[in-house]
Amino acid sequence: MRIAIDAMGGDHAPDLIVKGALDAAIEWPDTELLLVGDQARIEPHLSGNKLPNIMICHADEVIGSDDEPVRAVRRKKNSSMVIAGQLVREKQADAMLSAGNTGALMTTGLLVVGRLEGIERPALAPVLPTLDDVGVLALDLGANMDAKPEHLLQYAIMGSLYRNKVHGIGKPRVGLLNVGTEEGKGNELTKAAYSLLEQAPIHFVGNVEARDVLTRNCDVLICDGFAGNILLKAMEGTASSVFSVLKDSFQKSWLTKIAAAIMLPQLRQLRSKMDYKEHGGAPLLGLNGLVMKCHGSSDAFAVKNAIRQARIALQGKLTESIAAEINRK
Amino acid sequence: MRIAIDAMGGDHAPDLIVKGALDAAIEWPDTELLLVGDQARIEPHLSGNKLPNIMICHADEVIGSDDEPVRAVRRKKNSSMVIAGQLVREKQADAMLSAGNTGALMTTGLLVVGRLEGIERPALAPVLPTLDDVGVLALDLGANMDAKPEHLLQYAIMGSLYRNKVHGIGKPRVGLLNVGTEEGKGNELTKAAYSLLEQAPIHFVGNVEARDVLTRNCDVLICDGFAGNILLKAMEGTASSVFSVLKDSFQKSWLTKIAAAIMLPQLRQLRSKMDYKEHGGAPLLGLNGLVMKCHGSSDAFAVKNAIRQARIALQGKLTESIAAEINRK
Repeated sequence: MRIAIDAMGGDHAPDLIVKGALDAAIEWPDTELLLVGDQARIEPHLSGNKLPNIMICHADEVIGSDDEPVRAVRRKKNSSMVIAGQLVREKQADAMLSAGNTGALMTTGLLVVGRLEGIERPALAPVLPTLDDVGVLALDLGANMDAKPEHLLQYAIMGSLYRNKVHGIGKPRVGLLNVGTEEGKGNELTKAAYSLLEQAPIHFVGNVEARDVLTRNCDVLICDGFAGNILLKAMEGTASSVFSVLKDSFQKSWLTKIAAAIMLPQLRQLRSKMDYKEHGGAPLLGLNGLVMKCHGSSDAFAVKNAIRQARIALQGKLTESIAAEINRK
Repeated sequence: MRIAIDAMGGDHAPDLIVKGALDAAIEWPDTELLLVGDQARIEPHLSGNKLPNIMICHADEVIGSDDEPVRAVRRKKNSSMVIAGQLVREKQADAMLSAGNTGALMTTGLLVVGRLEGIERPALAPVLPTLDDVGVLALDLGANMDAKPEHLLQYAIMGSLYRNKVHGIGKPRVGLLNVGTEEGKGNELTKAAYSLLEQAPIHFVGNVEARDVLTRNCDVLICDGFAGNILLKAMEGTASSVFSVLKDSFQKSWLTKIAAAIMLPQLRQLRSKMDYKEHGGAPLLGLNGLVMKCHGSSDAFAVKNAIRQARIALQGKLTESIAAEINRK
């Protein structure tokens, strides 16, 4: 299998992206990694390592984090991200991953890689943190702002397959993000989606409230991109605010500073538990090939982790399974 | 002025509801309070206090917290909540408040009290906690699941007036809950609402992301009922999860228990800061009279606080101002 890596996207590109790819190339000799980007800037970070399964594919341009996504993808044909997408479209690579501009990556997915036949809207599916550290795969988290009930149904099918193939969960519990647990709750979208999900070939467990996401009463959480964004950012913002107030509280006196010293390891652990960035790459599901989004702040460990997930997904024939399941219906 | 109080609604009804009303009657002799509910159960809690401004209005029935809202309001014509609503509709009371079934209270507002002329959808407007303890008035938080852009515009006008008249904020900053701060972000609803809000006679400060609500970059937050519910419950759930993990961390060893003892007062303070239930009553705006929702767990202090808010709103002629502003447009 061959994975194209946008070596120029992300806060730590190209150095830590290349480092992560190198680590992966060493661990998995059966996997070919194509580093797409500026050869002159990538080569120094390979530091003379001549691994047979790592190659550079030169790309002149870079899509920046502030670039307007659609315009950037249309104009920067020679950017590392677009070229990685083309490699997937032309079946020269089985998967691509990028830690660059999220909007541009979603656009690359749609316009360059292309949708799977039968899929109406691709979905971005990161893993949200849960207290038991297993996480919930949530989709869609921002690829489509205005979803229809049929889109949510497709998200559920794709999310279940991903959870099963990549995370090894036998019968993933699918929940619908809603304002109450009872059937009949919600807006027009969730009410209509509920009926569709009930009849789908998935393990649907009903509505899930936003306050219960962290306690993981489902493995796959279905929502439209708008609600998903509100959920994710409310969780992030609240956790970060609580930690910031806690930090101040611990600085109040010499006594509280002692308490802080005692609690530091546990607080660090809690903080990392709540940080969804720790959970590796997020797949963009429903495309004609595997596309993985890594967080912008990804380090070598996160990049290697995303490559690991891509490998498992490819071995499990995720894309083919999604295509088969969607077109079976 | 006269305020009808549903003495039978809430976890601590009628005892603490009556206690709160008594405290209010003593503090504000100019305000008449009508305790609506079972006379035999209310009277003992008045404990012989014969205040000239507190009266009982007997009601046979009670709407329970598990009652289906619309059916309960339609069938239980003699319930304390419905009778309180009738008193407002018939102008025998200027306002009503209840700590009972939220859905039933919204239904009572719509079907018994009635909408203000020109208002398409009433909105529930609680104060969400912020780190500076001032709070953000957020609406709608669940009265209407499917909002139109024009509804959001009306929420903004009503919320600004409430914030101004009841909380004394001169020029309340109105923010639109959205997935990014830039104009043009969002779903069809928020994009259309943005244009309307820009032209409205309010101080519109643009889009606000869910992660920034706690740092209060606006005074009034506009959202549809579905997104508002996701926001509120995600904030609640995250805070509560963080505290529960913290509590476990503090129990790990004798050393962490010492740290816990040192930090206890500050943790309690932080916990109460994050608790939106502490922020008193939430108005149901856009009705033909003032309706206040108190949290189900309200104690005497919360009830008195809600009466205080109702008094200020009545003194400021909130309902009349909303009617004038909506029909001026």
